Amino acid sequence: MAVYTEVSDDDLKSFMASYDVGEVVGCKGIAEGVENSNYLLQTAKGPFILTLYERRVNPSDLPFFIDLMEHLARTGVKCPVPIRANDGKSLRTLCGRPAAIITFLNGMWPRRIEAWHCHELGKALATLHIAGNSFKQQRKNDLSLAGWRGLYSKVGDSAENVEAGLSKMIGAELNELERDWPRNLITGVIHADLFPDNVFFMNNQCSGLIDFYFACTDFLAYDIAICLNAWCFEADGALNVTKASRLFAGYDSVRPIEPSERQAFPVLARGAAMRFLLTRLYDWVNTPAGAMVKPKDPREYLRKLKFHRGVTEISAYGLS
Amino acid sequence: MAVYTEVSDDDLKSFMASYDVGEVVGCKGIAEGVENSNYLLQTAKGPFILTLYERRVNPSDLPFFIDLMEHLARTGVKCPVPIRANDGKSLRTLCGRPAAIITFLNGMWPRRIEAWHCHELGKALATLHIAGNSFKQQRKNDLSLAGWRGLYSKVGDSAENVEAGLSKMIGAELNELERDWPRNLITGVIHADLFPDNVFFMNNQCSGLIDFYFACTDFLAYDIAICLNAWCFEADGALNVTKASRLFAGYDSVRPIEPSERQAFPVLARGAAMRFLLTRLYDWVNTPAGAMVKPKDPREYLRKLKFHRGVTEISAYGLS
Repeated sequence: MAVYTEVSDDDLKSFMASYDVGEVVGCKGIAEGVENSNYLLQTAKGPFILTLYERRVNPSDLPFFIDLMEHLARTGVKCPVPIRANDGKSLRTLCGRPAAIITFLNGMWPRRIEAWHCHELGKALATLHIAGNSFKQQRKNDLSLAGWRGLYSKVGDSAENVEAGLSKMIGAELNELERDWPRNLITGVIHADLFPDNVFFMNNQCSGLIDFYFACTDFLAYDIAICLNAWCFEADGALNVTKASRLFAGYDSVRPIEPSERQAFPVLARGAAMRFLLTRLYDWVNTPAGAMVKPKDPREYLRKLKFHRGVTEISAYGLS
Repeated sequence: MAVYTEVSDDDLKSFMASYDVGEVVGCKGIAEGVENSNYLLQTAKGPFILTLYERRVNPSDLPFFIDLMEHLARTGVKCPVPIRANDGKSLRTLCGRPAAIITFLNGMWPRRIEAWHCHELGKALATLHIAGNSFKQQRKNDLSLAGWRGLYSKVGDSAENVEAGLSKMIGAELNELERDWPRNLITGVIHADLFPDNVFFMNNQCSGLIDFYFACTDFLAYDIAICLNAWCFEADGALNVTKASRLFAGYDSVRPIEPSERQAFPVLARGAAMRFLLTRLYDWVNTPAGAMVKPKDPREYLRKLKFHRGVTEISAYGLS
């Protein structure tokens, strides 16, 4: 669940006095997300989301995320928009934490992924990337190539508890990724965490994207590789090439995927699998028993990484 | 948190086809409550609550709860109302579980209890008891005197892990409660679980009561005793007599508390403390490590029980 900070009625009342969103008639913690505390705020003007940013978010990054959401919404991307308080600020403090109210995005995230979801996802992702072109701010991706060594050293030998030989295997894989990582792909704003629970659908269409709190500046095609890992594998660990093809086709219909991006895809997919393998390993090792959020199984991403290591042709992904 | 059953968009779609509550634009799990799965359902007509009844609720009890909510709402009690589907039924099946949609009750539950909350609570509780008079159905209270021995035998010696001598102490206390439990107090529909998170407030008034899934037929004054335990003790274990007095005064202003009920109050308060001590001990012993819901500390109710055992005059509660 995702309510780390209990907001009292009194605290909420003072906080809401700075906004013009109508009388609050309800405020309930949402059991989704793992990084921040989210409340569904019901007001006379309709529903809103109240987010309290918890310890995993660096407060100095928040203006980037908030400004990005404003920019994207203005540029036609379907996503939540931060609500400005009466003083013009959308980032305030509640219960000692940075907090913001954002608009409620209609739709539900898909629990069972079908190929058409992947096509819609591809279109939405490309639309996001194009809109990001005109966004002036930059934010380094701490969870890309440059960050993996640091995570690896923090996980250390405890990776061995997940699978014998895993620590050594990751070390070798990192060497190869550092050697083969692309240097000159198209760069821009990426979402960097576009898992199914961050993509809403309604009436068989993508109704929007949420949770921009990992957004950063990186290779656009790396974002596609993250999506491929998150959306196109079956529960048994096999890649669903139909889903992958639909993802690429949807994306390509909005922003054509360059030949250099296609050729780099296998190594980007390996890198994306490595990123989630490492953060899941880190959480696996560092989450105390009985914590509110159960850590996700790192082995899922280990299986995906192994798949990508076996790929020799981009046709394995349905790319040409 | 309280989302044991993940409702997929497809399942929800078929389920909602039987209702006329407007197009669903959102459905988010609520991180409150511990017995059932609750979703905040956002439709074109506004917010609703979707509840899936989980294993701790006996399906044969559900018609009692649903009919009671309908009756209470009709009789002027502020509480959620079950929504009838197009076939007239308000109890249906979703993801293999009994499920119902109920109206959204405005307000928030108080995180920090003040004396005026207790006065409002007393009025609301008495209003509920009076409205229950005209409800024809009955439901035995499994968690009153007759149920405690069974719970005690299930907890057994593991109570010793909570405090040395606790098992024996409970046995002795049960003997006394069985000897002294009142026989002829006014009986009717009680809520039986009116903790602060089940009572909503807005604009300094009680805006309504929720969660009738422990409601049953029992002594009305026992319900007041449950509230006293849940609302009128400070964090340090001391009874706040001001809060207790306001609870009684609020109640008495709507339904006068009879002399026999006043005299029985100390034993009722002991019984109410015993009920929550036993169920918390049961959960403490039976909740596996890493479960979604952390069990509540039974010692809180042990302290309350000890307080009540030391009471010799009803004036200790601010009663006369």
